[in-house]
Order: sequence, then C-alpha cells, then structure tokens
Amino acid sequence: MSTRWERLYAQRMQHMSSSIIRELLKLTQRPEVISFAGGLPSPDTFPVEKFQQAAEKVLREQSGQALQYGATEGYPPLREMIARHTARYGIQVTPDHILITNGSQQALDLLGKLFLDPGDHVLVEKPTYLGALQAWNAYQPRYLSVPLDDEGMQIPALEQALKAKPKFIYALPNFHNPAGVTLSLERRGQLVALAEEQGIPIVEDDPYGQLRYEGEHLPSLMTLDAGRHVGGKGYAGNVIYLSTFSKTLAPGLRLGWVVAPVNVIQQLTRAKQGADLHTSTFVQLVAYETARGGFLDEHVRQIRQLYKQRRDAMLAALERHFPKGVRWTHPAGGLFLWVTLPEGADTAELLQVAIKEDVAFVPGYAFFADGSGKNTMRLNFSYSPPQIIEEGIRRLGRALDHALAQVAVH
Amino acid sequence: MSTRWERLYAQRMQHMSSSIIRELLKLTQRPEVISFAGGLPSPDTFPVEKFQQAAEKVLREQSGQALQYGATEGYPPLREMIARHTARYGIQVTPDHILITNGSQQALDLLGKLFLDPGDHVLVEKPTYLGALQAWNAYQPRYLSVPLDDEGMQIPALEQALKAKPKFIYALPNFHNPAGVTLSLERRGQLVALAEEQGIPIVEDDPYGQLRYEGEHLPSLMTLDAGRHVGGKGYAGNVIYLSTFSKTLAPGLRLGWVVAPVNVIQQLTRAKQGADLHTSTFVQLVAYETARGGFLDEHVRQIRQLYKQRRDAMLAALERHFPKGVRWTHPAGGLFLWVTLPEGADTAELLQVAIKEDVAFVPGYAFFADGSGKNTMRLNFSYSPPQIIEEGIRRLGRALDHALAQVAVH
Repeated sequence: MSTRWERLYAQRMQHMSSSIIRELLKLTQRPEVISFAGGLPSPDTFPVEKFQQAAEKVLREQSGQALQYGATEGYPPLREMIARHTARYGIQVTPDHILITNGSQQALDLLGKLFLDPGDHVLVEKPTYLGALQAWNAYQPRYLSVPLDDEGMQIPALEQALKAKPKFIYALPNFHNPAGVTLSLERRGQLVALAEEQGIPIVEDDPYGQLRYEGEHLPSLMTLDAGRHVGGKGYAGNVIYLSTFSKTLAPGLRLGWVVAPVNVIQQLTRAKQGADLHTSTFVQLVAYETARGGFLDEHVRQIRQLYKQRRDAMLAALERHFPKGVRWTHPAGGLFLWVTLPEGADTAELLQVAIKEDVAFVPGYAFFADGSGKNTMRLNFSYSPPQIIEEGIRRLGRALDHALAQVAVH
Repeated sequence: MSTRWERLYAQRMQHMSSSIIRELLKLTQRPEVISFAGGLPSPDTFPVEKFQQAAEKVLREQSGQALQYGATEGYPPLREMIARHTARYGIQVTPDHILITNGSQQALDLLGKLFLDPGDHVLVEKPTYLGALQAWNAYQPRYLSVPLDDEGMQIPALEQALKAKPKFIYALPNFHNPAGVTLSLERRGQLVALAEEQGIPIVEDDPYGQLRYEGEHLPSLMTLDAGRHVGGKGYAGNVIYLSTFSKTLAPGLRLGWVVAPVNVIQQLTRAKQGADLHTSTFVQLVAYETARGGFLDEHVRQIRQLYKQRRDAMLAALERHFPKGVRWTHPAGGLFLWVTLPEGADTAELLQVAIKEDVAFVPGYAFFADGSGKNTMRLNFSYSPPQIIEEGIRRLGRALDHALAQVAVH
C-alpha cells in the first residue's frame, strides 16, 4: 500500500527533507527539558488582553466582514497600516505594494513558486534560515552559499557567486537567524549596488528588525535601494521585503507581509489565490484592531526590554559555563545566538548527550544549504526566563565539556 | 522596470491565468448589483454569538497555546473531532489520518505539489471547480475532462480517460460546484472500483456534503472505498477526502481538512510545513471551541433550512423569468445551480448586458479545463434572501431575452 502511494509522489517532493527542527521539537516536549531549540517568542509578550478586546470588538461590529471571504491581497486597513509603517523608513509605497501572507513562511513559498524553475540558482547566506530552504526545495533550485562573518555576507564571495546569475539573493540583514549577526551599513550599500548592477532581485527577510537591543537602527536594503531610485511614482526597485507579526504580536496568528514593486505583488497575489484564496479575514481584522492606534510601537518597546535581559543572561551564562575554544556571536537584537565549537566537534552528536542532560538546541548543519557547519549550533534566548537560561547553559556546558573531551581524545 | 521583473518569473507562472471570478467580484461590488457570482455563504448563517464566546474562552484559558506556534498537522482536539466525525460514516480513521489546512484551497495546492510534475495528467469533471484548476495550473499538468450529466460523471468517458493513466481523479460527488448535480450511488461504486482496479487515487472534494435539502445522504467515495478494504488497521485505501468549515461555520476562518491514508498525510504535512508552517492556532482553537459539544450538527440543520428556501426561491424565479430553451439543474443541496443556454449563446457577452441590468453571475467557460462551455453559467443561491433572488432572476431573465434575440438574429 505504502509503495503504491510513494510511486505517485511528484519528483520534486524527493527533494524535500523532513524537518530536523520539527522532529527535535517532538523530542524536547518533556517538561523537564530546557529547550533553546525552537524559535519561539516568549508567551509573556503576547498582548492577551488587547487581543480579547480586539476579538470582542471585531465580532460585535464587523462579523459579516470578519467571517466572510475576503480579497486575496489582504484586509485593506491592515495593508494601509503596513504601507504607512514602511513609508516611515523613506520608501514610497501604497497599499498596492503590500500582500498579506500566512506568516513569512508563505511569502517564501510564493516567491519559490513565482521565481524558481528546477535547476535555477538561489543565492543564500551560509548559514541561512532553514525554513527558506524547506520552502524552496520543493522547486528544485541549486544554492549558492555566501559565508557570513561578524559583519554579515562577505562581499568578495558574494561577487563571485553572482557570476552564476542566481534568480534572486536571499538575505537576512538584521539579527540573522541562525547566525545572530547584523549586516554592516557599508556592506548593505555594496549588496544593493551589486544587485542593482546585475539586475538580480534581493529577497530581504526581516522578521526581527524591530527587536534591536543596542546600537543604532540601520536602514533596510529596501530603504537603501529606494534611495537609488528617487523621483519615481512609488517603489519599483530591486528589493522584495518580508516581515511578520509573529515576533511582535503572536506567531499563532500566522500573519506576515510582503512589500514589493506593484507588478511583483500582483504576481504573488495570483500565486496566493491558487494556494489558499486569502489569509483568514478574522485574524487580519483582530490583528489590525490590536495593533492600531500606536499600540504595536509601544508594545514592541516592552518586548525589547524583556528580550535584552534574556540575551544578556545568556551571554553571561555562556561566559561562565562554556569551555575555552568555543566562540559565540553577540547579537544586537533578534532571538538567536550562534555558537561555533572547535573543528572536528559534531553538534548532532552533542545533542544526544544534551538531551540526556535535559537541554536542547538546534545543530547548525541544518542551516547550511551545502551540508557543512557540523561544529555549529543555534541557541534561542527569547523563550526562557533568565534563571532558566542560566540553568540550561550550565547543563549544556557540562555536555560540551564531555563532548570536547571526546574530540580531544580522537 | 516591468519587463525586468517579468523575465524573472518562473516558467510555470505563465500557465496561471488571472482569475475571472476575482475580476468579476470587483465589478460587482457596487451595492445596487445583485450578485449570483460569488460562492459566498449567507452571513446570516455565521454563528457570531458562539464565536464570541469561543474567542473569549480561548483567550482567557489557553492564550499561551492559542497565540504560539503549533504543530503543522493541526490542533490535536480539532483533528480528533474530525476523525470522530469521519468515523461516523464507516471509515476507520484516527487523528493521524487528518491534516488541517487553510481552507480546502490549500489542500488542492498541496496535492498539486505532492503529486504533479509538468506534463502529468489529471482527470477532472467537465465542468469542474475553477479553484482546483487555479491551484494546479502552477504545476503544469494536462487535464482529461470527463463530462457530467444529471447523475454526475459519465462512466464510459471516465473509462476512456483512465487509459491515459492520470496521476489522480478529481471528483466533487455532492452538489457539484459549478454543475449542481450529485453523483448517483451506482456511479459512485463504479468510480471507486475503476480507480482501485487501476491504482489511481481519487481526490474527493466535499465542501457541501452536509448541506442536503432533499433526498437521502449518499455514501462518500471514501466510505465506499473503505468498504472494499474491511479488516485493515485504519484507512489505507485509494481516496483522499477534502472538506471545510467554510460553508458550515464561516469562510473567513480559512479552515479545511484532508482525510487520507497516514503515509499520504505525512507527505502532505511535509509540503504544508514548507508552505506556511501551520494553520493559525488561534483560528483552530476558536473553531474547535465553537463546533464542539454537538453545536455544529445543530447549526448545520439551521443552515439547511435557510438554503433550501433560497434554492426553492431561485428554482421558482427561473420558471417565471427565464425564456424557453434555457435549461438548469435541480440541485439537491449545496450552493449552486447550473444554467445551459441554447448552442451559440455566449454567457461572457451576456454578462456585459447583465451588469448593465445590475445583476451578475459567473460565465461557465471558466469551469472548463478545455475552454468549452461558452453557453453555460453558474448561479449562487445561498447568499441572497428570496426576494432579492426573485428580483435578480427577473433582471437576468430580461438580459437573457435580449441576448437570445441576438443569437436568433445571427
């Protein structure tokens, strides 16, 4: 029976591997496990009371609209709010530049559908966001991986990779997932100029841009690109920008958005219509009602405070408990911190030990399109309170001592 | 600028035509237009008060779960509820046989992703559901169209089409959208037997199965197929069954489901994970809280009464106002009625006249994979109250008189 079905699956499905993160999350659901594996926001940040008021109001005043079919592009007031927000950063956009999606993940899938034929090249960072690889593997592209350092994408490697004429460049400039680094202003300018020069679109994924805990906000790639095209009638440049309410309101809404030139939004809308008609109108109206009137800005300030404490707690715990020879990034924002063990260490093996110590993380190789990164791991600092972070890092340090002793012996 | 983007779109996007229904809905949004075009449920059927209680309870008692990331497969109690509901019809299923989707539309897209490589054949009815064609065109299949009559798919044509070994058969057995016909019990048996014989899966799309206004409930294709495989350890047959809460709770939730053999659900889950991680947990919890405890069954009984009146109002108005030589189906349930004009008539042209008379419908050719059906149209009877139906059909009759006079003259 099983075989009968399997022979029917499309060629491209062979290229989709089952998610490591997903299988991991199942392993770590025992309550005694301290998990740094997920990318979960802290439930303490969910504005529950505000959601209650919003849901009550929407169902009282707008039930006919909230529960009915809606436009594929999204709820107009929500698109207007996002357009206004985007315009604050010097980008000339109207609601026609905005598409509402089921989280950024759907935007990634739609971009794959829109741009990728089998064998096309996609330029990604090394490491890169696992969910993007999962979305695109179904379309059978080949990946060009450009290594990151503490200032983000390395420009000489980028120039080299662009020679293969990728369909697009995928970049996470702010508080990179998983690497925790931020693309420097100088390199942002270089990236935008190179992409423009060669006519290659940039997909800028920015889920955490609002969550900066130190230093100055840097202009987005779209802002820099818009600056190169002054005088147009609305943004028609080279960048497709993705963001989400998952980290600022709640991920359980599944609500993200795309900002792009109007003709790209039209094509993405066509693709989304075939994919699911539209995103839940009920969720869109509730999110709009929750976010409006300046609430979201104010709420994000509170999230920043909470997550800054947790980042600092993790950095301090790492200093205390991690052995010599292990390096980690110092993220200026976001949810993740990236750890590099000495060459020869294997974090997939480490995870087996760690789970016995009741602590979990994501082995870094999952984030490498080319299968490297065996000695790296991603740690999430947003989910657990400081004292749990301290205890979890202590346990992980113990597992590390054990594992690195093994490496030394080999 | 425009050209630069267009050359980058994937080959397959060339195969996706913009939705006629969508463009139409824009035209008919003037309040004076009586629209039989959409597939909209009546907002009178939305259980608003029940939703209010459910949203309040979910946010009070389960906010941490409702607003957080969730499992790709869906909210376990909702999957259990659907499994229990499915089991009532004699199908041995557990929650592992269920995947929650963003409406049935997402299930159609995921099935395309899972099964279709470019050039594969898909067997569809003639006419068939437009949304299915929109979902699958992105995967570049070829369609085999099997004509319907008043008892559904014509079996000799089905046998003929199966010789081309389609990847799957797509069937809407109950109250067909757009054709309004129901597959007879005898033909259901024949279809299931033929599919089994040749090892070709059936995708059974059943959004309206609960909305029957006369006659006896007929067993689903999955029920008949399950009957052929008695004694197994849970359904592992040949049918993939789709349904939705869009017509029984509210379409604005975007909540549907797939029932299928466990290994097919696992593959669909992998595809969904790449597509959008999971369906809104908030929406799933609210829908579960709304539907549970027998409410949904009771609510569906009320919807049946309301829609039966509207169907009867439309049938009576058609008798009164439509000219001789025009035929229509007598749907035993669902939302739609299908009208066939004399050969040579063109309902796309008729629509231009109708819109001037402030009435709208969907020209039938949109529902034909092979581009035929120019003399057909789909009418929705669920959205408008009886007196509006009467007035709309009167206007449409006038437009028809005019159009058919033209045909006669040519």
